[in-house]
Amino acid sequence: MARLAPLSGFPEWSPSERVVEASILHNLRTVFELHGFAEIDTRAVEPLERLGGASEASKEVYVLSRRGSDAAQAEFGLHFDLTVPFARYVEERQGQLAFPFRRYQIQKVWRGERPQDGRFREFYQADIDVVARDVLPAHLEAEVAVVMARALATLPIGRARMRINNRTLVEGFYRGVGITDVPAALRSVDKLGKIGADGVRRELAAQGVTDTAADAAVELAKITAADASFATAVLDLWETTATVADDQAQRLLGEGIASLTALVEAVNSAVPGTAFADLSIARGLDYYTGAVYETTLEGHEDLGSICSGGRYDSLVAGGGFPGVGMSIGVSRLVSRLVSQQLVTATRSVPSAVLVAVVSEDQRAASDAIAGRLRARGIACEVAPSAAKFGKQIQYADKRGIPFVWFPAADGTGDGDVKDIRSGEQVHADADAWVPPAADLKVRIQRR
Amino acid sequence: MARLAPLSGFPEWSPSERVVEASILHNLRTVFELHGFAEIDTRAVEPLERLGGASEASKEVYVLSRRGSDAAQAEFGLHFDLTVPFARYVEERQGQLAFPFRRYQIQKVWRGERPQDGRFREFYQADIDVVARDVLPAHLEAEVAVVMARALATLPIGRARMRINNRTLVEGFYRGVGITDVPAALRSVDKLGKIGADGVRRELAAQGVTDTAADAAVELAKITAADASFATAVLDLWETTATVADDQAQRLLGEGIASLTALVEAVNSAVPGTAFADLSIARGLDYYTGAVYETTLEGHEDLGSICSGGRYDSLVAGGGFPGVGMSIGVSRLVSRLVSQQLVTATRSVPSAVLVAVVSEDQRAASDAIAGRLRARGIACEVAPSAAKFGKQIQYADKRGIPFVWFPAADGTGDGDVKDIRSGEQVHADADAWVPPAADLKVRIQRR
Repeated sequence: MARLAPLSGFPEWSPSERVVEASILHNLRTVFELHGFAEIDTRAVEPLERLGGASEASKEVYVLSRRGSDAAQAEFGLHFDLTVPFARYVEERQGQLAFPFRRYQIQKVWRGERPQDGRFREFYQADIDVVARDVLPAHLEAEVAVVMARALATLPIGRARMRINNRTLVEGFYRGVGITDVPAALRSVDKLGKIGADGVRRELAAQGVTDTAADAAVELAKITAADASFATAVLDLWETTATVADDQAQRLLGEGIASLTALVEAVNSAVPGTAFADLSIARGLDYYTGAVYETTLEGHEDLGSICSGGRYDSLVAGGGFPGVGMSIGVSRLVSRLVSQQLVTATRSVPSAVLVAVVSEDQRAASDAIAGRLRARGIACEVAPSAAKFGKQIQYADKRGIPFVWFPAADGTGDGDVKDIRSGEQVHADADAWVPPAADLKVRIQRR
Repeated sequence: MARLAPLSGFPEWSPSERVVEASILHNLRTVFELHGFAEIDTRAVEPLERLGGASEASKEVYVLSRRGSDAAQAEFGLHFDLTVPFARYVEERQGQLAFPFRRYQIQKVWRGERPQDGRFREFYQADIDVVARDVLPAHLEAEVAVVMARALATLPIGRARMRINNRTLVEGFYRGVGITDVPAALRSVDKLGKIGADGVRRELAAQGVTDTAADAAVELAKITAADASFATAVLDLWETTATVADDQAQRLLGEGIASLTALVEAVNSAVPGTAFADLSIARGLDYYTGAVYETTLEGHEDLGSICSGGRYDSLVAGGGFPGVGMSIGVSRLVSRLVSQQLVTATRSVPSAVLVAVVSEDQRAASDAIAGRLRARGIACEVAPSAAKFGKQIQYADKRGIPFVWFPAADGTGDGDVKDIRSGEQVHADADAWVPPAADLKVRIQRR
């Protein structure tokens, strides 16, 4: 039959690795719901017209066609993020939803990236957004960041460092130093990490930006602080570089500084040590208009940003739906955790107990014991065959099941339960015995 | 921008409808895990060669191509069920898995059906399978059915009636009455509901089956019983219709009867009143070799089978991996539940409490109260604006949040909490107050 080589870019986990992924998804979900975010689940496909746009991802859409039909006539593609479908969902249901609408969404997305780039072509994203009608209160910029910081804090991996910038601040500053095409300049500065300061200067020069303005933009991007002190650095730089006497630039700069200060302080007050003002954060998308966020994990900076987002003027074309949202690239995280075995599952199967079978004609007695354990929430399975007990213990061991229950000969449901790791065996009642809390459910543990 | 009409065949739910779906998925998951099934999650795409085969679904594959590329060169398609990817998964990982391997899988599948047929083109399936090496113990046919019966019993909809047949029985019988192409005859009998007895007779005649043999096949398909009594009816029919003196036919019939008897009795002993022997159940796929199952819901027979499956000789081409599995078509169920409002969510948002905000400069006090409630697992959100309390109550009401917390002026975290449904208001401590159990989490309720 067909080739068996794993498909590059389409991650797939072993059962115990899936435990890690499922546990992470569960933790994210729990934090999102504690903060009042409701889940939605959208179809995987969108009309191709909706999958256009300027972002890199939109160039990498997988188009769907029925087998044997002509792809040129394809009308649908797989979504490449969860924002496009969310925007459509809100547009379709705006009459039914109560705003500000808080939603979370955890689904796979697809991007036809070149596999040689080592990127995933199918991966889970976990998004939260709050979308308002007409006016989005500023405190929601902090709230979304706080919820994500709390969600990331549940993960068994390095501390999250959230780097935050403000588009209004940057726009005011750029205008003040004489940069007129702010979005183009931002796209260049966004490449700072890739092409370096000189590369950025060259791109800005090509856009007609003066050398002193380009220098100022590069200097601005170097400012970072864990608190409000970034503001002094920005204002000092502004003093020496602003050339355009423009009230609006000044106003935008002031608003942006105030907004970023409040945001960094609010996030650090809720989750201390998380937020940093970082004036280099640009985010490629023109779409963002206020706060922009990127998040790295201590000790895993090479993963790049694993949780990004920002504030936007309207989710829906035509305006009127300002919002703020962030998105976690879950599969990249899971991949790091499992490939480096930073986290492992305590076992690969849900069963805490294997109920042994004395003989095939006494299987019903074992089934009954299993039923009594399950009625109390203890996951278990009955041995597949009435082999010698030694073989049944071996089977439990191979499956990673910690306890084996040996039914009493009298069919009462009593029996002996053996911890096959320690060899300890105790007499027990199927209506009363419980495994130690650490063994009841599969858990994940740090290495 | 693009059209907004919902895409036919791609269901999408409102937030409160999604609560129903998520709750059903959660219940299925819980039952599967209690029975020791481990979850796997496979990529959505498979090589096209693997998506071939004789089934209807394989003709309806969605092919994937990168935008701008040639669909004729497409190599991948979206999976149309969870069996094809599971087979590949087992084939790839056979060296690492412990057999019998018990897995569940809950994912979306895609089928490019014609939308006018009213079928879904994207839907959730929930599958369980047990796959063994070389030998699959017979009791697993019962176990899989019992697990599914217990899973379906958690759903807030009519009782499941599981109709079971046995391929070996049918093969023995068919051979005994002189039918040589058993798979072809089975495919015709499978259409009994669609084309009627005369239609089936015509198709069998076209296959060269004699009239008396065709009559016998149709009569066999009429036999149904809630217990072992089907065996007498089968043997009576055999007495009057078997024409071929064939030891093998007789042996297969005997084995099949014994196997189906044991299966129906085991399932009904575990979940009384669930299983019926129904000799009309054929299942289109040649693939099945032992038990075959279909399940309808009392009062919703028009949905057709919502949970089907069977026993097969090998999951993996080349043999050696016998298994048995069943699959629930979840979206069809959810669609029935929500479209007829048989079940509704108690609210559409996770929040049990809206913490009111006295004034914007006291927002931090409200955030602190929310934090103390969340620390005890109470989902809540803080009011988006410090509007008049009447407005904040209105907002909670529109969102469906049952309680509003009014912070005490002294910032202690005490305050008054109002049930906005009854108007009852009590003084409360944010470290101690709990909502009534029925209000703590969103639940689903029957109409």
